[in-house]
Amino acid sequence: MQKENVKVAIWGFGAMGSGMAKMILKKKGFQITGVCDLNPNYIGRNMFDILGLEQGDHPDVIISSDIDKAIPEKSCDLALLATDSFTKKAFPKIKVLLEKKVNVISTAEEMAYPKANEPGLTEDMHKIAKENGVTVIGTGINPGMMMDLLVVCLSGVMETVDHVAVKRVNSLSPFGPAVMEEQGVGITKEEFDQGVKDGTLAGHVGFSESINMIADALKWKVDKFEQQMKPIITDVDRKSPYGFAKAGNVAGVNMTAQGYVDGELKINMDHPQQIEPEQVGSDTGDYITLKGTPNVNMAINPEIDGGIGTIAMCVNMIPHVINANSGLKTMIDLPVPRAIMGDVRDMID
Amino acid sequence: MQKENVKVAIWGFGAMGSGMAKMILKKKGFQITGVCDLNPNYIGRNMFDILGLEQGDHPDVIISSDIDKAIPEKSCDLALLATDSFTKKAFPKIKVLLEKKVNVISTAEEMAYPKANEPGLTEDMHKIAKENGVTVIGTGINPGMMMDLLVVCLSGVMETVDHVAVKRVNSLSPFGPAVMEEQGVGITKEEFDQGVKDGTLAGHVGFSESINMIADALKWKVDKFEQQMKPIITDVDRKSPYGFAKAGNVAGVNMTAQGYVDGELKINMDHPQQIEPEQVGSDTGDYITLKGTPNVNMAINPEIDGGIGTIAMCVNMIPHVINANSGLKTMIDLPVPRAIMGDVRDMID
Repeated sequence: MQKENVKVAIWGFGAMGSGMAKMILKKKGFQITGVCDLNPNYIGRNMFDILGLEQGDHPDVIISSDIDKAIPEKSCDLALLATDSFTKKAFPKIKVLLEKKVNVISTAEEMAYPKANEPGLTEDMHKIAKENGVTVIGTGINPGMMMDLLVVCLSGVMETVDHVAVKRVNSLSPFGPAVMEEQGVGITKEEFDQGVKDGTLAGHVGFSESINMIADALKWKVDKFEQQMKPIITDVDRKSPYGFAKAGNVAGVNMTAQGYVDGELKINMDHPQQIEPEQVGSDTGDYITLKGTPNVNMAINPEIDGGIGTIAMCVNMIPHVINANSGLKTMIDLPVPRAIMGDVRDMID
Repeated sequence: MQKENVKVAIWGFGAMGSGMAKMILKKKGFQITGVCDLNPNYIGRNMFDILGLEQGDHPDVIISSDIDKAIPEKSCDLALLATDSFTKKAFPKIKVLLEKKVNVISTAEEMAYPKANEPGLTEDMHKIAKENGVTVIGTGINPGMMMDLLVVCLSGVMETVDHVAVKRVNSLSPFGPAVMEEQGVGITKEEFDQGVKDGTLAGHVGFSESINMIADALKWKVDKFEQQMKPIITDVDRKSPYGFAKAGNVAGVNMTAQGYVDGELKINMDHPQQIEPEQVGSDTGDYITLKGTPNVNMAINPEIDGGIGTIAMCVNMIPHVINANSGLKTMIDLPVPRAIMGDVRDMID
């Protein structure tokens, strides 16, 4: 007997949501049942036209701004929610989906470990998911993998962990004008300081999620968390396709964070993001340094691309989330992620 | 209310078994309930004397060669079995333990993915474990982590995996005379060839387990598996504390293996083990190179020590195995491993 396709819907059809659709359509055993998005250029149009892809024998997927039309109750096994960065903003949408008895994977950075910043909403989501017999999780490349889950996984080879240092050095050069503006590329130091003060500069969301995920996995109790956001001032002119930073101005942002356990600095995070880091001899990469017995020194060069990585993590977790028992889960609760290279239906229990 | 200690017994008190005991005794919330070993110097003696450790308020643990005395039915939550490399040899012991309604973690290399070489015994173990309401798993540093689970985990960031290459370059220099002899350090090429022919040279056990674990996780079907064992002939004299290889003789063994999917080479493994690799410019380390979207190039330098790593992986998996539902599991079925830094009782569901 032919198994039924794994049915997936997508809420939020920006770079992430549409990227996930493209990835899913290359795999065997999936069907996209609905897309919800507010973009007036998309509403009422067929997803395949917007993606510029051959439709084959897939049924039409007409994009709707009405969630009840795009994702009716029980119309799919799982919804990918790619609309927000913060749990508080994603929560009402997650609630709607869970009450439609649909499993949920959220790209919201805070959802990778929602307990860190929203313990109350975390309990609510767990309860709603359980009541409806479905599962909700947040994931992505970071938080979700490079600065947390991979750290936890590597600690498995250790008898004792004394200190955790994680560094993710990435290049902003591939990104467009929106990211240049969000990260302050090209502005002066004074403009940067002002942007930090009034909250217009984005920076990285996810340090407290990553630090709390690691600490909870190891059964450490974080009693102090701090983070900093500083400009990376370039001493040479740097030029990327969409960015330009004159010598003396901002080439990117250096995000750092620390987690203390019993008053001792135990987890250190360092995440500089800038255009053309190679120009100043900075190798992009993901680095994990665990001090203890034994020491673990890991490097991934270059860094895992944030866009593709987030798309892949979310899609690759679909079978695990469908197989999980109900409630709110995090990446440390489920089996290790893995690429889907065969028929996804064979990965469903 | 104080939770009960997590009770662990150990079968096989060699370097691995006794190392696990030492690690466990440094952690909170564990109790060792029994040790079974055939060494006449150990039988009838208290484990703490043999380890040369303070006993504190732990009850005596008298080592016995009689498994029914060392590990009576339901006397512990889990037994660590550190006696064999091959599933066929470990199977009767695993059966005894499962029938005592005790969860089992085995260090046997083949048990890391027993389906690869012993599909019949794998089914038997799964059935016996289910009937007795307990769980059995095999793990270790390799197979179990560096050349398989970590590969699977990293593939989670990928949309597509085209090719997997894994390399583990380790130094035999820290090891004693037994390993020097097993790996052929110092012998001539002719003696090496003879040792391979008559099966007296050990080499690495676990390639087919690692390759099948990766392939099954990604839903690839391995249709051909090959492995090779070749001498590493040194062109300079090399000297380690317990080994000496004259120029022209064997400094170690180069183990290689390949897994084919649909006739195409998809998984490539390379595992040279030798004394003093630094002397010839060979950096020890664990290397994973995944070709696909995106490429992933990971390096861990130096390599994770095989002894400490195996001890840590087995002990760190104890809570996961106790929490798992019954049956035979593999590392790709359970949540990611992690170091136990707090009270292990807080990790039990």
